[in-house]
Amino acid sequence: MPVSQRVRTALERASWIRKMFEEGARLKKELGPENVYDFSLGNPNLDPPERFREVLRELAQEDPPGCHGYMPNAGFPEVREAVAAYVSKEQGVGLTADHIVMTVGAGGALNTVFRAILDPGDEVVVPRPYFVEYNFYLDNHGGVLKTVATTEGFDLRLDALDEAIGPRTRAVLINSPNNPTGKVYDRASLEALRDLLDRKSAELERRIYLISDEPYRKIVYDGVEVPPVLEIFPHAFVCTSYSKDLSLPGERIGYIAVSPRVDDVALVTGALTFTNRILGYVNAPALAQRVVGRLQGVTVDIGVYRRNRDTLYRGLLEAGYDCPKPEGAFYLFPKSPIEDDVAFVRELQKENILAVPGSGFGGAGHFRLAYCCSYETVERSLPGFRRALDRVRRG
Amino acid sequence: MPVSQRVRTALERASWIRKMFEEGARLKKELGPENVYDFSLGNPNLDPPERFREVLRELAQEDPPGCHGYMPNAGFPEVREAVAAYVSKEQGVGLTADHIVMTVGAGGALNTVFRAILDPGDEVVVPRPYFVEYNFYLDNHGGVLKTVATTEGFDLRLDALDEAIGPRTRAVLINSPNNPTGKVYDRASLEALRDLLDRKSAELERRIYLISDEPYRKIVYDGVEVPPVLEIFPHAFVCTSYSKDLSLPGERIGYIAVSPRVDDVALVTGALTFTNRILGYVNAPALAQRVVGRLQGVTVDIGVYRRNRDTLYRGLLEAGYDCPKPEGAFYLFPKSPIEDDVAFVRELQKENILAVPGSGFGGAGHFRLAYCCSYETVERSLPGFRRALDRVRRG
Repeated sequence: MPVSQRVRTALERASWIRKMFEEGARLKKELGPENVYDFSLGNPNLDPPERFREVLRELAQEDPPGCHGYMPNAGFPEVREAVAAYVSKEQGVGLTADHIVMTVGAGGALNTVFRAILDPGDEVVVPRPYFVEYNFYLDNHGGVLKTVATTEGFDLRLDALDEAIGPRTRAVLINSPNNPTGKVYDRASLEALRDLLDRKSAELERRIYLISDEPYRKIVYDGVEVPPVLEIFPHAFVCTSYSKDLSLPGERIGYIAVSPRVDDVALVTGALTFTNRILGYVNAPALAQRVVGRLQGVTVDIGVYRRNRDTLYRGLLEAGYDCPKPEGAFYLFPKSPIEDDVAFVRELQKENILAVPGSGFGGAGHFRLAYCCSYETVERSLPGFRRALDRVRRG
Repeated sequence: MPVSQRVRTALERASWIRKMFEEGARLKKELGPENVYDFSLGNPNLDPPERFREVLRELAQEDPPGCHGYMPNAGFPEVREAVAAYVSKEQGVGLTADHIVMTVGAGGALNTVFRAILDPGDEVVVPRPYFVEYNFYLDNHGGVLKTVATTEGFDLRLDALDEAIGPRTRAVLINSPNNPTGKVYDRASLEALRDLLDRKSAELERRIYLISDEPYRKIVYDGVEVPPVLEIFPHAFVCTSYSKDLSLPGERIGYIAVSPRVDDVALVTGALTFTNRILGYVNAPALAQRVVGRLQGVTVDIGVYRRNRDTLYRGLLEAGYDCPKPEGAFYLFPKSPIEDDVAFVRELQKENILAVPGSGFGGAGHFRLAYCCSYETVERSLPGFRRALDRVRRG
């Protein structure tokens, strides 16, 4: 067999998703991309803010000696200082450059943390639905994903978390604003989770970390606040990227921010710097580091996503769909009007609408719509959503 | 314990190397960096070629819509086409974009290949001395590193390879031009290795791949040819980066070129695209992809390294060191004049010369000098090399 058994198995399991994407690509070719309503991918359609372009041009002009060479594996000290200053304000905790490791996106950040803290068999507890790549990221390091239910409105369920946390648990991983639901956990929920982790860590005589995967932190609506996890949790890692808020997911630039209050923080950041290296990332891309170092606090125009959300959400509700209103990110996670979400996604495809079945996110009975697309796509898709729903209702 | 057991163990094992680097940093601070002769790191001191700067400025000006967004996980199709056209000429085999996966440097390329072909317990055979990160890269995926001896002059030993290849062997990994020795394997050696792999694959009823880690391919001296492995080996992967030949190791840009002759090539490239994604790389950095797409065949001025090599090699020989003449890369691997190479590296440190003990590369009794430094460093270091040798000879 030319590839490993485990990769072959994973590819076979993923094949129905691939078939769906292939079908989407075929539709676009046949009908023209403007006649296919693609809500399947979280690839922001906004371009980076104008300030990004200016900084890129400045840096291309300056290009000082050594700026494309190796730097410490954790990243350029001056970039880490800029990030630390920003995160300190954002999270209400005093961080220095020593608490920041620049990474190859949030994907790189999560893998770097997992490798640093997990021994094979260690468990990470994740509320579902959840970002499906977590399965792979944990499996990469012999970690075990343990999912727990959330409420009907996708809020944390402390009882379920309490039950799931056991002697092999190393961390609870949250993603707020959430992909795929758009849910933002409020401060009270997080403080209750903090108390639970404190109690469980004491009971089990083992530190249980909080890992916050928060690439959508800056994409929130209606004045919702994303509570500062480093202020709330003493033993926490923030893993994030600039992919969504600066619209540059292809550049692979993010970071880990380590709570200054974790036990033996120098050992922990040393371990992260080491795992960032040995996983083959070596360091975050040099130029992208220098770009984001000068763009702390800059974001794309969130209003574009809010308008998409408002129109799509209202349209779906009017058509008769059941859907919690997302507070952040750029995803809607409506209930499938029939039990089989894969079948309903096929029904939507007949209307040239591309969506992803909720079962792919541990959220069977729902489907995900990524509305980081053009407003025209949103507007023109609505009749199709209505027709698909009418069709399945008629049976 | 705040970090995993395996990472803690690895960090403890690496601590003497770290101490050595810390001592080097202390020396530089105390004496001024110009008075410390740092041969410890393979960080090219040359800046990228002028054409690189021009292309970077062009791309920063153009900045077309979507150019920082996600692209197929294997990379931008037009970049992969440019790479395929170049590699086809270089390797004498017809490749298309489908045979290229753009990666986060050669480190990313190796991890992506290992994850795609190895099941836990599978072995990869590597001639020693070897690049020490291979240990980690294999361990990341449950792979097992099996090293085999080379000749006195660091040539392949077919008998040792024959003996090492067994029922769990999945690949032989070569690195030519070699880090740490500068050795380049000639065509006859590689053809003999190809025949061995053919025979062993048939005997063991299991495909044994050749993986060629070749970031130094373009850094060769005296007209030495690096034989084209994709022409010689039907079942091969080339893993490489632009880190050394364009002097941009911090940008993390490289690629995998898959032999079009591997069994089920579509499955293999599909697996690589998948593992590149799930390892958290997702894709090679977008901007760096577009830069190197326009720089196929461009390299830094190798003459600078040749001059360093010539002066350092001649100086060491005149001083009385024993050292095979490197044919490529920017490393010398002299014999330590005393058995204990760590002790001798400490002796060199007394002369403000920073080197790396050969035992770190599976080459005990040698030490590595990275001469990708300034010519002044080379010239001014020679008296110190002489004094250190005299001192240990006097006992």
